[in-house]
Amino acid sequence: MNDLTTHSGKVYLIGAGPGDPKLLTIRAAEAIASSDVVVYDYLVNPEILAHSRRNAELIDAGKRSGHLSISQNEINRLLIDRACRGEIVARLKGGDPFVFGRGGEEAEALVDAGIRWEVIPGVSSGIAAAAYAGIPLTHRNYSSSVAFITGHDAHGGSRAVPWSEAAYTADTLVVFMCAETISRIAREIVTAGRRPSTPVAIVRWGTYQHQEVYSGTLEDLIAIDESGPEARRIAPPAIAIIGDVAALAGTLHWHGRDELRRSLSSLIQQNVVAATDRLEESCSNS
Amino acid sequence: MNDLTTHSGKVYLIGAGPGDPKLLTIRAAEAIASSDVVVYDYLVNPEILAHSRRNAELIDAGKRSGHLSISQNEINRLLIDRACRGEIVARLKGGDPFVFGRGGEEAEALVDAGIRWEVIPGVSSGIAAAAYAGIPLTHRNYSSSVAFITGHDAHGGSRAVPWSEAAYTADTLVVFMCAETISRIAREIVTAGRRPSTPVAIVRWGTYQHQEVYSGTLEDLIAIDESGPEARRIAPPAIAIIGDVAALAGTLHWHGRDELRRSLSSLIQQNVVAATDRLEESCSNS
Repeated sequence: MNDLTTHSGKVYLIGAGPGDPKLLTIRAAEAIASSDVVVYDYLVNPEILAHSRRNAELIDAGKRSGHLSISQNEINRLLIDRACRGEIVARLKGGDPFVFGRGGEEAEALVDAGIRWEVIPGVSSGIAAAAYAGIPLTHRNYSSSVAFITGHDAHGGSRAVPWSEAAYTADTLVVFMCAETISRIAREIVTAGRRPSTPVAIVRWGTYQHQEVYSGTLEDLIAIDESGPEARRIAPPAIAIIGDVAALAGTLHWHGRDELRRSLSSLIQQNVVAATDRLEESCSNS
Repeated sequence: MNDLTTHSGKVYLIGAGPGDPKLLTIRAAEAIASSDVVVYDYLVNPEILAHSRRNAELIDAGKRSGHLSISQNEINRLLIDRACRGEIVARLKGGDPFVFGRGGEEAEALVDAGIRWEVIPGVSSGIAAAAYAGIPLTHRNYSSSVAFITGHDAHGGSRAVPWSEAAYTADTLVVFMCAETISRIAREIVTAGRRPSTPVAIVRWGTYQHQEVYSGTLEDLIAIDESGPEARRIAPPAIAIIGDVAALAGTLHWHGRDELRRSLSSLIQQNVVAATDRLEESCSNS
């Protein structure tokens, strides 16, 4: 199909990796530098845009607080239109484009339109946030499997997550976009039989200098939920790691400021409202 | 603990990413370039060693055909000894060091010895092999979760994979190091109730120019098993993707040679013995 196209445009679906801009791949940096247009999502570190050409057009297609500034259909249309004009387009997504990035849908739209495209995988935010919190997702003594699940209901579509099954999905569970839902999820997987004392770590702003790590257990998350509206306590962006390996964050920590490593139970005791540092404020700190 | 160390050595646990050397991160390239010693595993593309300094010492710590050329304890000892001499050590692993890379064990050994260390996450081989085969691991219509599981019994230790439970771990299953075991695994998860017509793709040498993709269903894998010794048919290195998304490899392919995209059932019909291209030969083709 690609051979039939008369234009020479092309779209790169690029994983921009997690927050640390040095976790961009060499191939991604080269593709960005070769592009006429860069279409980037919210959660792509703005420092990564520095790889673009001076005269490249930069288009913010980001979501904020669950609100799509441009719809998925509009994004698909934008990518196709620009490639049809013969432009090289860098489509930047946080983490990896094919892991909760909706890159598959964009690839399908490009194929349908006969546009040349490539995907450039990125360092997954789930893997990187865990690593920067000192958590190996697998470990010969504690975990021989890891599952990535979205905590964001909006992902839904026809595929809601059955949490009672997910409880046993793997030794380690990584819940992406978990901020608003993690306490409810904790309750459901404990109800389904997972040990309440199972270690948990929640990582906010993973891999950034201002990364926060909250450590505790599934039980702690349920207690937080019972002490008030959870959404006021842990604000996005957050990723949860559930399983025995999460306990290693205590001994294997190497990144981030000590005062930003707290226990989950401290959230209840001190009535800390983490959500007061709003997304916009945190962004400006990066 | 790091403050108490008297030497200035340091160990970087580095994810070298999958085969494509351009999928190395910028941070990894910089760490390699700053290191006195590079200790690398089998499945790290040798081209990545080109980032090292001219006078850097290069140590092959690779496994071949399941045989450890250096034991894990010896590797730990090596990393610690060199850091104690004040050297900067780059420890290179294929994919990501904390996803089936035994990086957690090395980190624990370094912490115990009071050595400064950092982990540099990499592009996971499972994510990249799928992407280069045209498979989005999650998709709003087909998959809201993905599990990474090792197919290699040697990973075992105290954590054998219970495949009857693993069958339902997630919408998409990615089985690492699956070459010798995938037919047995297919049989177990079908017995546990997963649909025999579930799409499967097996990717050998993922992201390399000579990447091979075998497409079919769980049923096909069982048929291969019944037609003869499976180990003679699919040789390492191989990763399997199981789930509805695997069927997208047909429409979303963009990488690799057409003649290296085959059906699983062709393995039976043509009695092709893929294992005849031995690891060493394939390596020399890269």
